Amino acid sequence: MRKSAGVAEVPQKAQGNLPKTARGEATRRAILAAAERVIGSKGYNDASIGHITSEAGVAQGTFYIYFSTKEQVFSELVLEMGRLVRHEIAEATQGFENRLDAERAGLQAFLEFVQAHPDLYRIVQEALFVDPDAYQEYYETFAAGYKTGLIAAEAAGQISKGDADTRAWALMGIAKSLGEQLVVFKSDKPIPDIVEAAYSLIERGIRP
Amino acid sequence: MRKSAGVAEVPQKAQGNLPKTARGEATRRAILAAAERVIGSKGYNDASIGHITSEAGVAQGTFYIYFSTKEQVFSELVLEMGRLVRHEIAEATQGFENRLDAERAGLQAFLEFVQAHPDLYRIVQEALFVDPDAYQEYYETFAAGYKTGLIAAEAAGQISKGDADTRAWALMGIAKSLGEQLVVFKSDKPIPDIVEAAYSLIERGIRP
Repeated sequence: MRKSAGVAEVPQKAQGNLPKTARGEATRRAILAAAERVIGSKGYNDASIGHITSEAGVAQGTFYIYFSTKEQVFSELVLEMGRLVRHEIAEATQGFENRLDAERAGLQAFLEFVQAHPDLYRIVQEALFVDPDAYQEYYETFAAGYKTGLIAAEAAGQISKGDADTRAWALMGIAKSLGEQLVVFKSDKPIPDIVEAAYSLIERGIRP
Repeated sequence: MRKSAGVAEVPQKAQGNLPKTARGEATRRAILAAAERVIGSKGYNDASIGHITSEAGVAQGTFYIYFSTKEQVFSELVLEMGRLVRHEIAEATQGFENRLDAERAGLQAFLEFVQAHPDLYRIVQEALFVDPDAYQEYYETFAAGYKTGLIAAEAAGQISKGDADTRAWALMGIAKSLGEQLVVFKSDKPIPDIVEAAYSLIERGIRP
């Protein structure tokens, strides 16, 4: 197996009642996907557990097998979206041994994820008010993995020397801002064009 | 007068009851500064007009000379913070004829503004839920000015050719993310170190 040049995975905190069967896991994911749509469109305050179970097509009692409160499903949704986006990027960058190639593929994968999950921004931004710990974990987990990847790439001579911490936050900021332009400000620029323009800046910015 | 290489000013929409005297303007600014502290610490829902006038040291009736509702003072606060940050950047970059020097000075000015206004992120992010139009105006005004500056710099041969729109959002994203690392995630890295590391990426990323 080739070593990935992508975003490193970082351990997560406990996730409540994790299901033991594949079917249970599918139900839990269906509830989280419904929470994503319902909280994304109504906002946290106006969303109810009834809305979420109705959207998921499960009985209200089923919700309580996996989550105990609306607060808990929201926190888990924020962390799950973080895991999903990091997983997508890790998958997309796995084939690349060179960090610069991985940066391009990772940015493209991130923007595609954002387009498929247009409520991501609204949900994560609302976490700053509803669950600041989940907000912090979302970004700091991402930043820690990014930084680890940059340090490894610098050691391998794939990128120039530089402050990996500031670079990680700067590169995350580029991706986050371009994703927000795409889905919150509804830009109609095709993702490949965005990636090409941004990657040109990134590649020249950090290449050896 | 030298031409500024900084962020261009873009016309604003109407701002409600604008005071006609310097004293009136000072009172209006005091109310907005109080709203910044109160809404920044309590959040929009828990902040009241009474809290704001008490923090500002003015009578409640005085509030209504300038604003009619809490919604209105919040919207005006978001737009005022946008004007203030663009003004700071324009001031800081005015002396530079070269866009790259202006980028560095602008990033430094932005991070200093953020450090002096630690509630900026919380307030602007809350606008996505409380007043999406103000949120949109805040970022789109910023992006439009940034883009105009990049197009002029490209025409003057000060930066390489590239998609000014995507570059504007990418560079805004860098500044926004580093500012958030500083005040929301409470990094203790000194601003000059952040600027040096980020500017190295930016300078190499867009220089001719």
